[in-house]
Formats: sequence, structure tokens, C-alpha cells
Amino acid sequence: MTKRTLLRVFLGRLWVLALFAAWVSTAAAQTDPLPSWNDGPTKQAIIAFVTDVTREGSPDFIPPPERIATFDNDGTLWIEQPIYVQFAFALDRTRALAPHHPEWKNTQPFKAVLEGDMAAVAAADEHGAVEIVATTHAGMTPEEFRQTVKEWLATAKHPRFDRRYDELVYQPMLEVLAYMRANGFKTFIVSGGGIEFMRAFAPELYGIPPEQIVGSSIVTTFERRDGRPTLFRLPKVNFVDDGPGKPVGINQHIGLRPVAAFGNSDGDLEMLQWTTETGGRRLGVLVHHTDAEREYAYDRQSKVGRLDKALDAATLDRWTVVDMKHDWNVIFPFEKR
Amino acid sequence: MTKRTLLRVFLGRLWVLALFAAWVSTAAAQTDPLPSWNDGPTKQAIIAFVTDVTREGSPDFIPPPERIATFDNDGTLWIEQPIYVQFAFALDRTRALAPHHPEWKNTQPFKAVLEGDMAAVAAADEHGAVEIVATTHAGMTPEEFRQTVKEWLATAKHPRFDRRYDELVYQPMLEVLAYMRANGFKTFIVSGGGIEFMRAFAPELYGIPPEQIVGSSIVTTFERRDGRPTLFRLPKVNFVDDGPGKPVGINQHIGLRPVAAFGNSDGDLEMLQWTTETGGRRLGVLVHHTDAEREYAYDRQSKVGRLDKALDAATLDRWTVVDMKHDWNVIFPFEKR
Repeated sequence: MTKRTLLRVFLGRLWVLALFAAWVSTAAAQTDPLPSWNDGPTKQAIIAFVTDVTREGSPDFIPPPERIATFDNDGTLWIEQPIYVQFAFALDRTRALAPHHPEWKNTQPFKAVLEGDMAAVAAADEHGAVEIVATTHAGMTPEEFRQTVKEWLATAKHPRFDRRYDELVYQPMLEVLAYMRANGFKTFIVSGGGIEFMRAFAPELYGIPPEQIVGSSIVTTFERRDGRPTLFRLPKVNFVDDGPGKPVGINQHIGLRPVAAFGNSDGDLEMLQWTTETGGRRLGVLVHHTDAEREYAYDRQSKVGRLDKALDAATLDRWTVVDMKHDWNVIFPFEKR
Repeated sequence: MTKRTLLRVFLGRLWVLALFAAWVSTAAAQTDPLPSWNDGPTKQAIIAFVTDVTREGSPDFIPPPERIATFDNDGTLWIEQPIYVQFAFALDRTRALAPHHPEWKNTQPFKAVLEGDMAAVAAADEHGAVEIVATTHAGMTPEEFRQTVKEWLATAKHPRFDRRYDELVYQPMLEVLAYMRANGFKTFIVSGGGIEFMRAFAPELYGIPPEQIVGSSIVTTFERRDGRPTLFRLPKVNFVDDGPGKPVGINQHIGLRPVAAFGNSDGDLEMLQWTTETGGRRLGVLVHHTDAEREYAYDRQSKVGRLDKALDAATLDRWTVVDMKHDWNVIFPFEKR
């Protein structure tokens, strides 16, 4: 072989090698369904579950109609600190409506809201909370309410990130939603938040249709108004989809026991127990907020999204606990840009 | 051309013609989505609606996520005479449980049930009805209840047709369900019947998954029993999905206003009004039971499935009224065999 021939063969092989490397890396990029998750046991647990229950002939195989996955919303799919997004909405709406209610200047809990006295707002009793909900969430049709929420979301900004709230969703969880749907799962939101509040943004934001959203609700009545059939929202609690209410809401709306559930707080304890405490292969996931720098760090002592009993239960029930700081290489979608 | 040649050509053409005729009739059979419906304005109204709202560029076009179609169950998808199927179940269960309740021999409404005194059963007050529901529908988990319903359905027979109740579904309506789904509609049941009762058979019978079934319900609680997370059915009404309750149930479970609704009685009046009284192209259908020979004939005076106000509203709101006797060439699937 001449040197030239040798060189040619060598370069030829290099070229083949380069092509092969490019192909391998492309294939890897295409096949990683969770690119915002760092490699490690957490990511592995999610992928192993989905792989095992969807492989025909696997002892853990779950037929498609039973592939029900439920997701809490606040703190699991999007931000919940320093206050729940829906609470921020209620406060902003109260301020917006104040000019029509001069009496609020001297009536609690409105006075506290208008003066920005968050300690007094937080200290308001249940009656006070009901007053605010009645004013900001009731007395209108569901369509009008959703429209109000949409308009608010289009402009309101998170105090720390100065971003719209619908930008403050967790990119790794959007990937989990898409990954599970691609594997035949039906994804549901099961949240303590208001069902109509979520329906204003969840279909577009998460790709979850209105009938797959389970949440708390106020009483809605049907009546004819001005000769037209009308639904009307009343200032009265109908259902609280939190804690032990979550399995009840799941049964009422979904009618099947989930095989995978994702939460982040004690409000999700019963949903995760209901999902995982069966004989079969199940997936329970808790998002543990451990990243004070990129988001927030909170658990057992937090007023919003307290994670205490559920963190203990995670060990007992072998749930997967996401360490946000170490498991997620991206938190919000805008970080990818 | 010799006679023989002529004959050959003629036969040749006949053969081609026969093939062509066979092809045309096969194509027609394949493309008729509603073969159990006789040609006429009723069938045409359903097909015209589906065609118009699904054709891209049509002024009536409805995007797939908004293609919500709701169906009443009793009298619309399956038989409801001489008594609602769920009522037949309650009576049979009462009889089956009687050996464990010797006191029922002297307690109403159980006494009337056990003696087959249907007049007395019918005359029982609301308290009596609640007693029977409490005994036959509550005091167990949703899974146990569904299992009981399944076992009953597997053996119970309709008194007139001597067929299992799940054989007494309306073949033309099964075709409508399949036809609408094939055109991108999501099909929902919205029934006054019990949501858990229907979930025992509707997924298999109608191809409608549990989360697309809306119905009446009793209160269900979550608790730990023997260390296991458990849902438990209580003898207390939670929601009545009938009349003005139907738009409320639709809003709670579906979260979108339907664009097509099918019913057969005054219990469907508000659902059809809610669906059709809008600006856009909508479809409201009433199944009018006009066939005493093949099924039953009843409307304004009937105790079960009374169709009175809704029949008047049909004219006003331009709903399509199915004349069962003339519009359906087959009523039950077994007639096809």
C-alpha cells in the first residue's frame, strides 16, 4: 500500500467514523424523551416505568385504556411561590374592582388587600376567603370567568421573575406529559385549584383538554336569563379537590384508578397513596423544590405547598422524589432559548 | 359480426356491467355510515350536519377540539321501558339481599318490592326510594358496585324481549356514535342514570371511556380501611344529572358547550336548549318512540321517559325528531343477524 493509498483509506475511514458518530448523537438526541432531565436514578425511574408497562408481553404491561396519569398543577406543573397563582389573580381582581366598591376601604378582608397588607390577608378567616372568592370568582358565567382569567394571564407578571405566569411552567414536566401521551397514557390534571380557573389556560399550555381537568369548584346553576340558557357561578363551594378530595375527584371525573401520579405537597398525599398502594407496577412522583437559586427551596415548613407527611410517605411507598436542583438541567422553557 | 361474436360481446358487456353494479353497491354499502337508518329527512339532517361542520372552509366548520356530542342513555341509547334498567337492577338486588334482612317482610318499601306490588313501589315516597338506593347502591366501594352491576347484567333478562339488557341497545344509535367519532367528535354520555352504574357497561357497549360518562352520583368518601386507601359509597345524593342538572353536569365534567346533543325525554330539554340555542350551526336530536310493535310507543303521557315539553321545544328550536318506526329499519343489533 502506498502512503497515498494509506492516507486515502485512513481518511475514508475517518469520514465513515464521523458519519457514524453524527448518526449516533442524532439518534440519541432524537430518542431522549426527557432532555431537560439530567441522567440519574430519577429520570431512569420514570423511563423504566413507562418502558416496562407499555412493552407487550412484559409482566408489568398495562393496556392503553388503563394508562391514566394524574398531575397536580401548582408546584408540580407550574410555579406556586410566593403565593398560588390563583390567589394572585384574586388579589389583582379585587384591586381592579375596588373603584366600584368604595365601601371596601373600610371592610375586611378587602381593606387588607387594597392596602397590600398581606399579613392581614393571610390572617383572614375562612369567611374572608369566601368573600374574596365570591367577589372575584362568582356572579358571572363560566365563559366570562375564563375570559377574565385569560386577560389577566396575558398581562400579569410574577413579582420575582417578571415573567407571565404561563411562562413559569416546568419544562421537564412538559416533557413528561408529552412522553407519557406518546406512550398511550391519558394525562389528567388533578388540582386543588379551581377547575374553571385552570380551563382558561391548561388546554393550550399543557395540551390537556377541558374534560381531563379535575379541580375544586363552586356551585354553578342553569337558568334562563333574558330568554337565553345560561350557566351562572354562585359564591358557594361545591367541591374541594385537595387531600382526601383528590381520590374522590378522580373517581368522579375519571372513573379509573390512576397508574401514575405526580405531586409536590401534602395535598397530593392521598392521590399518590390511592395510585400506588396496589399490587401492580405503579409510579408515584414527588417534585421536591430544592433550588432556591433558579426557583425556590421549600418543604416541611412552607405555608404554600407544604411537603411534610408526603415526604415521609415517599420512603414507605417507594415514590420517586425529584431533586429539582440536581435532576433538572432546565426549569422554565425560556431558559432553553 | 356473427351472431356468436355478438353474443360474446353482449355477454362480455353484461359481465362488465354486473361487475360495475356490484362495485357501485359495495361502495354505497361501504360509504353509508348509517345503514340502519332509512333514507329521509332525519338521516339526511344528521349527515348534513356532520358533513357541514367537518368540511374545511365551510362557513359552519367546527374545529376538532370543539366537536363535543352528548347522548342521553335511557331511551336514547338503550331501552327504558317498562321501567328504567337501573330500577330493574335495584329491585332484583333488593330481592337478592332479602334473605339477610328478614325485617324487610314488614318494612316498606321493601315489602312491596318483595311482594312484587309495583303499584306500591311506585307510590313509595322519596324516602322509600332513598332506602332502596341506600341498600342496593351504597355501603361498598365503586369497584364492588360495578362488579355487582356486571354480574347482574350478565344474567338479567328484559321481561318482554327475554334478552339481556345490553342486547337492547339501539343499533341506529351505535352507528351514530361510530359515525361521529370517525368524524373527530368526542362522544359523551350525559344521563340521569347513575354514573357508576353506567361505567359498568358503557365503555364496552358504546366505546365510551369512563371519563366521558356524566351521570347522577351519590357521595363517595376516601378513607383508609384495614390500612388500605379506599373509596366508599354513602347513601346520600351528591348530584342529580337530569333536566337543568344536565348543562351543569356537562360544564363540570366536560367544560365545553356541546355542538350536538341527543335525547328522548323532558329530562333532556335543558341539555338540548343549552346545546342548540347559540348563533352557530348545531344539532339537536330527539328520539321519539313511535314503534309499539318492535319496541314501545310513548311520549306526552308516559311515566317513564315522558316527552312533552321537549316535543314542543323541538319545533321552536328546530330539533330533528326521530320517528323510530319510520326512520329505523333495525332497532336492536340482534335483528341484523
